[in-house]
Amino acid sequence: MGIVLGPNQYGKAENRVVRIYRDSPRHGIRDMTVSTALRGDFGIAHTEGDQSPVLPTDTQKQTVYAYARTHCEGSIEEYGLALARHFVDDVDPVHGARIEIEELGWERVPVGEGGHDHAWTRTGPEVRTAAVTVSGSGGERREHVVGGIKDLVLLKSTGSEFQGFLEDGFTVLEPTDDRVMATSLVAQWRFAGVEVAWDEAFAEIRQIVVATFATQHSKALQQTLYAIGQGILEARPEVVEVRMSAPNKHHFVYDLARFGIENNNEVFHADDRPYGLIQATVARDDAPPADDAWVQQLGWLG
Amino acid sequence: MGIVLGPNQYGKAENRVVRIYRDSPRHGIRDMTVSTALRGDFGIAHTEGDQSPVLPTDTQKQTVYAYARTHCEGSIEEYGLALARHFVDDVDPVHGARIEIEELGWERVPVGEGGHDHAWTRTGPEVRTAAVTVSGSGGERREHVVGGIKDLVLLKSTGSEFQGFLEDGFTVLEPTDDRVMATSLVAQWRFAGVEVAWDEAFAEIRQIVVATFATQHSKALQQTLYAIGQGILEARPEVVEVRMSAPNKHHFVYDLARFGIENNNEVFHADDRPYGLIQATVARDDAPPADDAWVQQLGWLG
Amino acid sequence: MGIVLGPNQYGKAENRVVRIYRDSPRHGIRDMTVSTALRGDFGIAHTEGDQSPVLPTDTQKQTVYAYARTHCEGSIEEYGLALARHFVDDVDPVHGARIEIEELGWERVPVGEGGHDHAWTRTGPEVRTAAVTVSGSGGERREHVVGGIKDLVLLKSTGSEFQGFLEDGFTVLEPTDDRVMATSLVAQWRFAGVEVAWDEAFAEIRQIVVATFATQHSKALQQTLYAIGQGILEARPEVVEVRMSAPNKHHFVYDLARFGIENNNEVFHADDRPYGLIQATVARDDAPPADDAWVQQLGWLG
Amino acid sequence: MGIVLGPNQYGKAENRVVRIYRDSPRHGIRDMTVSTALRGDFGIAHTEGDQSPVLPTDTQKQTVYAYARTHCEGSIEEYGLALARHFVDDVDPVHGARIEIEELGWERVPVGEGGHDHAWTRTGPEVRTAAVTVSGSGGERREHVVGGIKDLVLLKSTGSEFQGFLEDGFTVLEPTDDRVMATSLVAQWRFAGVEVAWDEAFAEIRQIVVATFATQHSKALQQTLYAIGQGILEARPEVVEVRMSAPNKHHFVYDLARFGIENNNEVFHADDRPYGLIQATVARDDAPPADDAWVQQLGWLG
Repeated sequence: MGIVLGPNQYGKAENRVVRIYRDSPRHGIRDMTVSTALRGDFGIAHTEGDQSPVLPTDTQKQTVYAYARTHCEGSIEEYGLALARHFVDDVDPVHGARIEIEELGWERVPVGEGGHDHAWTRTGPEVRTAAVTVSGSGGERREHVVGGIKDLVLLKSTGSEFQGFLEDGFTVLEPTDDRVMATSLVAQWRFAGVEVAWDEAFAEIRQIVVATFATQHSKALQQTLYAIGQGILEARPEVVEVRMSAPNKHHFVYDLARFGIENNNEVFHADDRPYGLIQATVARDDAPPADDAWVQQLGWLG
Repeated sequence: MGIVLGPNQYGKAENRVVRIYRDSPRHGIRDMTVSTALRGDFGIAHTEGDQSPVLPTDTQKQTVYAYARTHCEGSIEEYGLALARHFVDDVDPVHGARIEIEELGWERVPVGEGGHDHAWTRTGPEVRTAAVTVSGSGGERREHVVGGIKDLVLLKSTGSEFQGFLEDGFTVLEPTDDRVMATSLVAQWRFAGVEVAWDEAFAEIRQIVVATFATQHSKALQQTLYAIGQGILEARPEVVEVRMSAPNKHHFVYDLARFGIENNNEVFHADDRPYGLIQATVARDDAPPADDAWVQQLGWLG
Repeated sequence: MGIVLGPNQYGKAENRVVRIYRDSPRHGIRDMTVSTALRGDFGIAHTEGDQSPVLPTDTQKQTVYAYARTHCEGSIEEYGLALARHFVDDVDPVHGARIEIEELGWERVPVGEGGHDHAWTRTGPEVRTAAVTVSGSGGERREHVVGGIKDLVLLKSTGSEFQGFLEDGFTVLEPTDDRVMATSLVAQWRFAGVEVAWDEAFAEIRQIVVATFATQHSKALQQTLYAIGQGILEARPEVVEVRMSAPNKHHFVYDLARFGIENNNEVFHADDRPYGLIQATVARDDAPPADDAWVQQLGWLG
Repeated sequence: MGIVLGPNQYGKAENRVVRIYRDSPRHGIRDMTVSTALRGDFGIAHTEGDQSPVLPTDTQKQTVYAYARTHCEGSIEEYGLALARHFVDDVDPVHGARIEIEELGWERVPVGEGGHDHAWTRTGPEVRTAAVTVSGSGGERREHVVGGIKDLVLLKSTGSEFQGFLEDGFTVLEPTDDRVMATSLVAQWRFAGVEVAWDEAFAEIRQIVVATFATQHSKALQQTLYAIGQGILEARPEVVEVRMSAPNKHHFVYDLARFGIENNNEVFHADDRPYGLIQATVARDDAPPADDAWVQQLGWLG
C-alpha cells in the first residue's frame, strides 16, 4: 500500500478585472471576475516542496491583467481561450488550463441619444459566465468552451402547476394547479468547437431561456428545464450539452382567511431556506466527449 | 444613581412579501422586504418581563401580510404609511411606528408586445427604499416619509479627477486628472409632507442621480454628492433633505509597463476593501424638524 | 430659501490590518478591520470641489497601517484613541474623528504546552468592537469610547417563555411557557472616561452577557436585554450606557404529530427571515452627555 | 441525432434542523443544515411533466425533520446514512440518494462546573460536514461516506516560505523565506466502509489537520496539503482518499519604510481578492472505486 497524489490544480481565483475601451469618446466597459487553474506536472511541489515547476499564482494574475489589455477585444470566451492556450503552450510543466470568467453587466446612463458615452449603472443580478479548458498538445490537444449564465432570477405568477406526484407516509404537500414558480437559474452550455459567434450565441440562448420559462405551461420545474435545454440545442447546432441547476424558490400563499381576508394567489411569503433544487442535463445523443470540460475550479469541493 | 431604560424599539424585521396583482390577465408584481418597529410604553416588558403592553412581533408580521392585500395598491410609501398609522392609532401602548421597506425590481420577460403578461426577470442590484415614521396623536401627530435608493452601482470611466488635496507625512497618493470613479450609492430623501406623487417623485429623483453622476465633471465624490443633493432639492419642492452614503469603489490602474505594455486607463483592478466612504447631507435651510425621521431600525447599531 | 451642506464625514472604511507581535518566538496576533471617518471644515470640497482641506482617504489608510506598528501594543480601544487623537490634533481642518474597529478572534493551535507559538485557528463568529470619537480642542475637547461585541450567537433550549402579551385582530401566536430562545447579539457600552483596563473590562462584560443570558429565566428577550444591561452597569462603574440590538432568531417546533411522532421541543426548524428585532438602551440616570459618541460611520445610512 | 436527458438529481436543499437532546436536565444540541438529492427513474418528469415517480422535495423535507427525531442519536454520518438508505430502499423510483450535512458548532456557556446545562454560544467559522451517497440494491449496493471540515481558517506567522519557483516574462513576485501563510481550508475524506467511530475519527483528523499546518515547515501550501492528507491516511486506516481546497489568503507586508518605520513582518494587509487556490487529492494507491461518492449536489454547477 502506498500514498499517492491524485487530481490537483492550482491558480489565482477571482481577479477583479475591469477593461475600459476608450479608442473613441464613446467608451466601452467589460467588468470581469477571472479565475485561473493550471494542471500538470506539479507532483514534487506537493511531495517535496520543490517549486521549480510551479508558475506562481501571482504570475498567473499578472498574465490575466496583461491579457486583458492585449487579448480582450472580443467576448469573454475568446479572452479565456487566449489565456488557457498561453498557459498550456508557453509554460512547460502545464498540461492543462482552466479559465473561469464571470462578466458583470452594465448599461449606459440614459442621458442623450443612446445613453451616456462614459457613465454606466450596474445591471444584475444575472451574470454571464464562460469556462474554458485547454489541454494537451499535438494530436492530444483538447479545447472546450462552456458558456453560461448564473443568478438569472425568474418568476411567473401563473402558468405553473404541481400535482400527480408520488406520495408516501411523509407526504403532506397539497397538489396545486396554479402557483408562483420562481428560480435563480444557473445554466451552462458546452460548445462542440471554438469557432463560434460567441456574443450572438449568448444573446439567443438567453432569450430562449427566458422566453421558454415564460411561455411554456409548466407541470414542474423539471419540465421547464428540459424544455429550455431542448430549445437551446434545437436553435444552436454548435451547442452539444446543457447543464442546469435551479433552486425552486418557494413562494407560499399567505393564509389571510383567518383574518377574514381573501387571498387568491395575491400575497405570498418568499421563503429563503430550504429550497427545492432541481438539476438536469440535456444533451445530444451524439455529443463528443466532454473530457475535463466540466471539472470546475471554484466548485471543485462544495 | 439609578439604572433606567433608555431609547428602545422592537418589531419584525425583513418580512419577504411578494404581492401579485391579477385583476386582469396582465399581472403586476411588487416584491418587498418589510420591517416594522414599534416605540411606546413598553418599560415593564424590559424591567419586569410583563408582556401585557407588547404586541408580539408575530402579530406585526401578520399585519404586514394582511395589509399587503388590503393597503398596497399604490407605492411602498403609501403602504408604509398605512401600516405605521395602524400601529399608532389602533394599538394603545404604541406611540410611534417605524416601517422600513425595500422594493426589489422586476422587468417583464421580453416576449410579445410590451413583454410577457405574467413572467419577469429580476433587475438590480439597486433597490428602492422607503422609511415611514409616524408618532403621536392629536396636535402631537408627526408623519415622516423618507424615500430612497440603495445599491445603485455607478461608474464613469473619465470625467473625474482628484488633486490639490491636503498632504501630510503619510501622504503617498499621486494626484490625478483622469480616473475611474465608481460607487454603490445609498441616497435617502426626506419629504416635507405625505401628499406626494410618490412614484413620479422616485422616477425623477433617480434620473437626477444618475444624470448628475454622469454629466457633472467631478473634482471629488464629495462634489458629486453635493450636486446630486442640490439637483434633487431644486427639482422636487416637497423634498427638504437628502442624505447620501457613497463608498469610493477604488479602481486601480494596473501596472503593465513592467511588461512593456501600455495601459492608458484601460485595465483596472477593482479592489474590494478598503474603500473610501463619503457621507453627506444636503438640505434646505428652512427644512422643518426631522424629529425621529432618521432613527433607523436595521441600522440602529452598526 | 437656500440649500446648505448638513452633517457629513468621510474616511477609509474596512482596512484589513493584521498585526503580528514577534519580539519573542512566541508570537501574538491581532486581526482587525479598521474604519476611519473625519469631521470638520470640508464644505468647499462639497460645494466647489476644492480639495485643499481634504486629507485623502488614502492617507488615512497609510496612517492606520503605520499606527498599527507604532501605537497598537495594547487594546483596540487604545489604538483607536491614538488614531483619532492624531487626526484631530495633527490635521488642521479636522475637528472630529471617528474610528471603528472590529477585532476577529484567533486561538492557538492546540499542540504542546499552552498551544503553538505561531499558528492559530480563527474563532468566531463573534467579534469584539470599539468605536472611538474624539472632537474639539482645549475646553471643547471630547473623547468617547464605546466598546462592544457583535455576532455573539446565543441559544438556550429551555428557561424561556413568552405569554401574557397584548392581542388584537391579527393575533394568532400561541403563548408558550417553554421555548428555544436564540439571538445574534450586538451590544455596545459607553465608557465615561478613557482611563480603563480595556481588556479586563471586555472580558468581564462578555462573561456577564453570556452568564445572564444563560441563567436568568426569561419572560421575553426584552427582559433578558435589560438584565444584561443592568448587570454590566452594576459590575463596571466606568460604563454609563449600554445599547443592544438582538434579533429573535426563531426556532419553530416542527410538527411531527401528523406522522405519529412525538416532538417534545426536540426538533426545530431554524428560520432565517423574518426575525424579531429587539433593541434597547440601559443607562445610568446620571450618565454624562453622549455628544457624538453614537454617530456611526458604517451604519450612518442603513 | 436526438436530444436526451443526461445526469440529473433533485432534492430539498439547506433544511435548517436544530435537534435538542433533553432526556436529562443537561441538554445537548446538534445544529445542522441538511440537503437531500435523489437520483433515479425520473425521465418522464422532465420530458412530459409527469410527476408520478417524483417524491416531492417537500416530502423529503418532512422526512429530514422526522428522522432528526428518530434517527439522529449519533453522528451526522449516521443520520445521513439513515436518510439515504430510506430514500433508496423505501421509495421505488429512487436508485440513489445523496445527503449533504453541515454541522454548526456550539459550546456551553461557561458558568458552573462543565458549563451551563442548556445555554450555548456558537463557535465557528469552521463547520463539520458529511456527504453520504447510497445507491443500488442487492449486489449493486454501494454506500459511501465522505466526512469533512470547511471554513477552517488557519494562519501561521512564520515557518512558511515560497521560493525557487518557475519564472517567465510575467513574473514579478519576489521569493521569500519567511511569510504569513493563511487559508480557509475545505477538506473532505472518503471512508472505505460504513462501520466507523465517526466522532472519534473526526476529532483525530481535525487535530492532524491543525497540528500538521502548525508544525510542518512549509515550502508552499501544496506541500502542507500533501502532508495533511498523508497524515490523515497514516492515522486512519478506514480513510482511503482526502480532497482539499485551500485558498491562499494573502497577507501582504505593508510598506512602512517610506514613512521611516521598520516593518519586520509585523504589519500586514489581509487582501480579499484575488486569492491563490490550491486543490489537491491524496489517496491510497489501492483505494476502492469512488463511484458517485464525489458527485455533489450544492456544488454540482459552480
